[in-house]
Amino acid sequence: MSGPQLAALRPSSADRTAAIQLRRGPNLSASYTVAGPEETHGPLGDQFDEFIEDYRLGQTTFEQAERELTVRAVHGLLRRAGLAAHEVDLFLAGDLLNQLVTVNFAARELRIPVIGLYSACASLAESLAVGALLVDGGHVRRVVCAVASHFYTAERQYRYPTELGNQRVPESQRTATGAAAFLLEAPQTGDSASDEERVAITSVTLGRVTDLGVADPNNMGAAEAPAAADTLQRHLGAVHRSQPYDRVLTGDLSAVGLPLARELLAKQNIVLGETWQDCGLLLYDQDRQAVQAGGSGAACSGLVLGARDLMDLHRGSIRDLLFVGTGALHSPVTYQQGESIPGIAHAIAFERRAGVAVE
Amino acid sequence: MSGPQLAALRPSSADRTAAIQLRRGPNLSASYTVAGPEETHGPLGDQFDEFIEDYRLGQTTFEQAERELTVRAVHGLLRRAGLAAHEVDLFLAGDLLNQLVTVNFAARELRIPVIGLYSACASLAESLAVGALLVDGGHVRRVVCAVASHFYTAERQYRYPTELGNQRVPESQRTATGAAAFLLEAPQTGDSASDEERVAITSVTLGRVTDLGVADPNNMGAAEAPAAADTLQRHLGAVHRSQPYDRVLTGDLSAVGLPLARELLAKQNIVLGETWQDCGLLLYDQDRQAVQAGGSGAACSGLVLGARDLMDLHRGSIRDLLFVGTGALHSPVTYQQGESIPGIAHAIAFERRAGVAVE
Repeated sequence: MSGPQLAALRPSSADRTAAIQLRRGPNLSASYTVAGPEETHGPLGDQFDEFIEDYRLGQTTFEQAERELTVRAVHGLLRRAGLAAHEVDLFLAGDLLNQLVTVNFAARELRIPVIGLYSACASLAESLAVGALLVDGGHVRRVVCAVASHFYTAERQYRYPTELGNQRVPESQRTATGAAAFLLEAPQTGDSASDEERVAITSVTLGRVTDLGVADPNNMGAAEAPAAADTLQRHLGAVHRSQPYDRVLTGDLSAVGLPLARELLAKQNIVLGETWQDCGLLLYDQDRQAVQAGGSGAACSGLVLGARDLMDLHRGSIRDLLFVGTGALHSPVTYQQGESIPGIAHAIAFERRAGVAVE
Repeated sequence: MSGPQLAALRPSSADRTAAIQLRRGPNLSASYTVAGPEETHGPLGDQFDEFIEDYRLGQTTFEQAERELTVRAVHGLLRRAGLAAHEVDLFLAGDLLNQLVTVNFAARELRIPVIGLYSACASLAESLAVGALLVDGGHVRRVVCAVASHFYTAERQYRYPTELGNQRVPESQRTATGAAAFLLEAPQTGDSASDEERVAITSVTLGRVTDLGVADPNNMGAAEAPAAADTLQRHLGAVHRSQPYDRVLTGDLSAVGLPLARELLAKQNIVLGETWQDCGLLLYDQDRQAVQAGGSGAACSGLVLGARDLMDLHRGSIRDLLFVGTGALHSPVTYQQGESIPGIAHAIAFERRAGVAVE
């Protein structure tokens, strides 16, 4: 296992938000995942909280099914936490559909005040970042962050309806079907007396839109790689950690994007080695499942983070985790107008800690 | 002038975020507006900071023009404030186009870390609310909130390309062409010594998705009215003000939505009278301009708030202002699938104040 190498990192004095430090570190108290059929047949199949066998979930349209996935994930989360919807201050969520119809129609059902966020497949990271800042700022005590995507709604909107039976190219990725919901809470003073460790969000980096000119709508990972490298460089340069994270988890760079991002960072003398894993390569078994370069979609990182990595943190098999949600800002309209596809990435640092650090 | 009547308001104990009070009250330090041709010919024409005569702004596509409007508004704002882009911590922005291409491509040019928000025509209010909470939370010191819309991109995406020459129905509204940018800053300790009053954001209410079953994509105001009433009721019930706001400004209810919202609130014994104005009825001259029921679009409230109401506050002709951004969560896909059009509204309270109140 090659160790991480973090030479030559220096924070830019102008980049004051390269890593925003949280004061009390909101608790990531619970998560809940609902996975689709292909995801359930993947390597993490037995770790999801709920799975569906029918891509329509008994609904008339795939859009309704995607919304139902979201509502089930939030209801599952609330059930697990023993909370009613009205006990949640805010619902922060994103999805891939135009006008955020998944988020907004789910919010109509939940009746929780909502902040709709769009950052393509990085929408979960954006929601967690904003949610953590709001809870840490002290204005709200409890927020639910959620994300969803659905293979059949996304393919139709972004590429071609699957009914056309178009052959998929090797660098294409499969949009995950599923939803994941996460509960962030302000740590209570009583927590500090407890021996039990909690999973806290300790810092966040909001990303810059980055574009190295990738213009292939079937290659999301390559479009995301420059943004992932930019955010990782900014974050790692600013946090001044005595030792690197036990794990760095990117969203959906997959088989094409991950080596590209590694290469871009290596040019800056940042080599993370095997501590760097990618949700797009963890959700499916590429030998056994026809997913080409791996997974993608807003739910891809939600399912892996919720079912695997946060569980590893809660169990203590890792002490800390840097989650870097990645998004390809692909638009069928601007693509047809000759534009390239910019990328974005937001980073969230999770850490096991005891007690409540007050500024 | 009929005075406001605020009887029978009581906050729900469960609704802890009905009005989130800010501690120090971030400064609304500057705003900048760029208006389109029809907007410049309206009653506020001479109050915009910049106007365009060409709907394309010399670009190849209307989408590029909308992006250029946004970049011009942000550059104008930074120039006015004497700031470079790298001195801004975060860019919070929303637009009406799929995948937020206006925001994201503008952010690519600006290179400021970005939070993309979507709340239809309430996106500016959502950006201001989140921006104010983040600055007040102390994690960031200076954010730019922005919004844009363009008549020709919106009509094509949401209804029909204007080249078809479809006749517009009386309840339809004109999507404003323009962009507006706003600078929010943490008040400095020195501010308290100054005699000069500042414009502060004192509280925010994030809205709930509300739907009374309106399903007409040509009638955005009616779809928004129930959400406007819900947010106003929650906000006013929670703030316990000794006297009502000098002005309540809704986003784009216009000629059909405003009386509906008044009616819904009257049933709750809330009568705001002439203190309640609506940007959709202020941006154009309905007698002289062919705008049917009035204005709409994400930029509608941005242009009016930036060019008129915040100026009234800065000049002191009003002491406080409740801005209620309204959005119709219309999706052409879900509409075709038989869904109704839910609405949302977010409220931001502005106030002239001297000094810095610390919690």
